[in-house]
Amino acid sequence: MVRSAASLIRTHGVAATSFSEVVAASGAPRGSIYHYFPDGKDQLAADAIRWTSDRVLAHQRECAATSAAGVLECFIDMWRQVVLSSDGAQGCVVAGVAIDTYAREPGLIDIVRPTFRSWIDLLTEQLKAGGVAKARALPIATATVAGMEGALILCRAEGSSGPLETVAVELKRLLPPETTPARGRSGLATRG
Amino acid sequence: MVRSAASLIRTHGVAATSFSEVVAASGAPRGSIYHYFPDGKDQLAADAIRWTSDRVLAHQRECAATSAAGVLECFIDMWRQVVLSSDGAQGCVVAGVAIDTYAREPGLIDIVRPTFRSWIDLLTEQLKAGGVAKARALPIATATVAGMEGALILCRAEGSSGPLETVAVELKRLLPPETTPARGRSGLATRG
Repeated sequence: MVRSAASLIRTHGVAATSFSEVVAASGAPRGSIYHYFPDGKDQLAADAIRWTSDRVLAHQRECAATSAAGVLECFIDMWRQVVLSSDGAQGCVVAGVAIDTYAREPGLIDIVRPTFRSWIDLLTEQLKAGGVAKARALPIATATVAGMEGALILCRAEGSSGPLETVAVELKRLLPPETTPARGRSGLATRG
Repeated sequence: MVRSAASLIRTHGVAATSFSEVVAASGAPRGSIYHYFPDGKDQLAADAIRWTSDRVLAHQRECAATSAAGVLECFIDMWRQVVLSSDGAQGCVVAGVAIDTYAREPGLIDIVRPTFRSWIDLLTEQLKAGGVAKARALPIATATVAGMEGALILCRAEGSSGPLETVAVELKRLLPPETTPARGRSGLATRG
């Protein structure tokens, strides 16, 4: 049910995702959603964020890259697969909640904030391990998360992964020369 | 009414914006919204996108910058003012619609697509006029629009303009050295 909710929120935001749709998409019995999520849709959205973030962090931790460019490519490729598998229709569940939620309203935004921070922190540590100077790692990690979140929006508008590929190349240009492989692209297949 | 709709959509997405709220925020008589927007909320959202995009393009065209860094700073500063005036709560109405709308569904996404393209095209032309090579102008313009859209999401999570300032510095690093002012930042006041 959480997976179905994450998929629906990724596709059309949290406000437009109804309990009925989640029940229909998950195949769970109708009453069960009220049993598991007595606090309503915010609780379901919060669980969808946590479920997504756990997968994002696990994917990124399993990244075998030792170079800084490889670290960025791992993160980028995760979002590339989301875009390619949906022709651009799926975005990021955390952004979907962030955009549909009043900032400073306690609740969901308090789950969105540490989620983005945890992604930026992990990328920062991995970039440092990949040879990026401490003072450069955090800005590059922040630009990477922002760049991918924005690229997902443009991919959705275009119905293609073209904007993501363009942003990916630019993000890798931010790396110091010694940590950038000569090719600039890691050779993964791209579609556009 | 369109301005009120744009403001509400910027703050919490199109799905969570109701006709009632737009009427209340605009102070217009209740019946008038059905008179001016007989096709419903999609029409109101479409007009809010057009109204916003006209302002974005006008702001950017009035930009007096002659350097490529100045061109980026004009675009960035427009979004900085949106963030600062709302403590991060307001994002981009076009992204709000893009995230709440099924990609490939005819309708709103067909208005979102040319809107983002028109911003990227204008930035591309201005960057070329500012001395950026033709082959570099489009990728930098695309990364700038993606970077700002993503930064608005992170600013909303943080309730501050910190992520936007970080992304702004990184975007300017993409410019060729001869077009980047020595300071890297244009000296505008920033808040975190």
